[in-house]
Amino acid sequence: MEIEEYCREKRALVEGALDTFLPSEEEFPHSLHKAMRYSVFAGGKRIRPLLLIAAAEAVSDDNTGVIETACALELIHTYSLIHDDLPAMDDDDLRRGKPTCHKVFGEAAAILAGDALLTLAFEIAAGLSSGLKPNCLYTIGELARAAGSRGMVGGQIVDIESEERDIPFPLLEYIHIHKTGHLIRAALRCGALLAGANEGQLDAMTKYGDNVGLAFQVADDILDVEGETEQLGKNVGGDNKKGKATFPAVIGLKESKERADELVEKALSSLEVFDERAEPLREIARYIVARKR
Amino acid sequence: MEIEEYCREKRALVEGALDTFLPSEEEFPHSLHKAMRYSVFAGGKRIRPLLLIAAAEAVSDDNTGVIETACALELIHTYSLIHDDLPAMDDDDLRRGKPTCHKVFGEAAAILAGDALLTLAFEIAAGLSSGLKPNCLYTIGELARAAGSRGMVGGQIVDIESEERDIPFPLLEYIHIHKTGHLIRAALRCGALLAGANEGQLDAMTKYGDNVGLAFQVADDILDVEGETEQLGKNVGGDNKKGKATFPAVIGLKESKERADELVEKALSSLEVFDERAEPLREIARYIVARKR
Repeated sequence: MEIEEYCREKRALVEGALDTFLPSEEEFPHSLHKAMRYSVFAGGKRIRPLLLIAAAEAVSDDNTGVIETACALELIHTYSLIHDDLPAMDDDDLRRGKPTCHKVFGEAAAILAGDALLTLAFEIAAGLSSGLKPNCLYTIGELARAAGSRGMVGGQIVDIESEERDIPFPLLEYIHIHKTGHLIRAALRCGALLAGANEGQLDAMTKYGDNVGLAFQVADDILDVEGETEQLGKNVGGDNKKGKATFPAVIGLKESKERADELVEKALSSLEVFDERAEPLREIARYIVARKR
Repeated sequence: MEIEEYCREKRALVEGALDTFLPSEEEFPHSLHKAMRYSVFAGGKRIRPLLLIAAAEAVSDDNTGVIETACALELIHTYSLIHDDLPAMDDDDLRRGKPTCHKVFGEAAAILAGDALLTLAFEIAAGLSSGLKPNCLYTIGELARAAGSRGMVGGQIVDIESEERDIPFPLLEYIHIHKTGHLIRAALRCGALLAGANEGQLDAMTKYGDNVGLAFQVADDILDVEGETEQLGKNVGGDNKKGKATFPAVIGLKESKERADELVEKALSSLEVFDERAEPLREIARYIVARKR
């Protein structure tokens, strides 16, 4: 199957499941549920759910809890974008070509919509709709560790504290590994865990996730320099204008590109323990450096 | 045992466990972990953990996962206070007699500290330190439902949208039942579930929780009118100054007090199915209307 077709199919599954899990706009309190839905359905690429599903499929056909955990992960990602865009944080007006949540619904509603999405993620991950499964407890732990102060939120605060400052390369890597990488690693590990991966498979997925996660962020930084505003849906050079540390700013554009390619190669080689069922994961890794937005 | 002694003992247990679960201030990123610890150890009464522990003890001696879930609940409560106090929300400078989190650490750190505490709550509730227990999945669902858009966060947005507006009594009850009540109900239900309660016991705990939760909020509103600033640790009349809907403002002070007493009576009568091991729960219900701060 072509990778575009594969992604389209899985994405449709995820969109449908997200629609089921999210309270309707008709449900009180309307403003809160509208804000939650606005941000979740603002046109995300669903890369994290895709990775989770592809990881599970690379390991086995057992898909119990996979779609639930994939949605949970996407809700955590969405909440982090809403809070990241707040005036007290990155103060962004535009996200994926649309006004950010707080521009449309106000700051209070945006803070609360983020809070509610994070909470809903764990409600869904608790797997109430898919019955009890011991691995659900492990995946909840994975998600929470990846998203918490030792993961994504840790990366966010260091990112904010580093604005307008020259930071050393290790700190830049810390930011990216934590802010983006940990959640992507969790996608791979949760998928593998739910599918019943053995230790070797879980290790391989972890390595793939670490490399792809960092590659994704380096590629994002490169796009922020090279992309065009209309393709990207946000203001190009936005990071640089805010004095944010980026890979091109710290190690240069050429070296950033080499680094991204190298990370993708490492990701691919970690998948050697898997058969052709890991093909979508291989294609996604290649796509990350090839994409234009 | 005297109830003060009981509460002191359980509170010490909770404080110790919270200290273990929270990353140390020495752990990077320091500012984030400092902000988290500042708010968690700002002198809360730990009423929700106490209720959870007392509910579990009223049902059985099986305390697997009880302290973990009690701490998770307190972290959810703490995160909600941090976000509630933000300039975009209630804009409070003082909480429990101390400057609020965002006054000390800035808005960005306060938003992220709240996010991290909510996330840590689910990491702890996933019970990784207490081994796997099927009921943990139920209790994670309970916590998430109580804290989400159909629970606490739902109450918060309606509360904020009701500022400076005359609201009908049912909407005032909606706010309090959701903003405070659901989390207190979850305390009782989680405690009972973890201790292996049967359906009748779970129902009784739910009723107790609903009545005590609302009584707690009515009593809080009354204290806001009658209390003294130094005892309360926040500015008296604060809610009224912001044009917030409160029970005394909507149904008057006298009727509010009658309502609080009535709710406590109902809470006590729902405990009739339990023996003397529910005595702490009975005492806590009585304390709620008798307390001065």
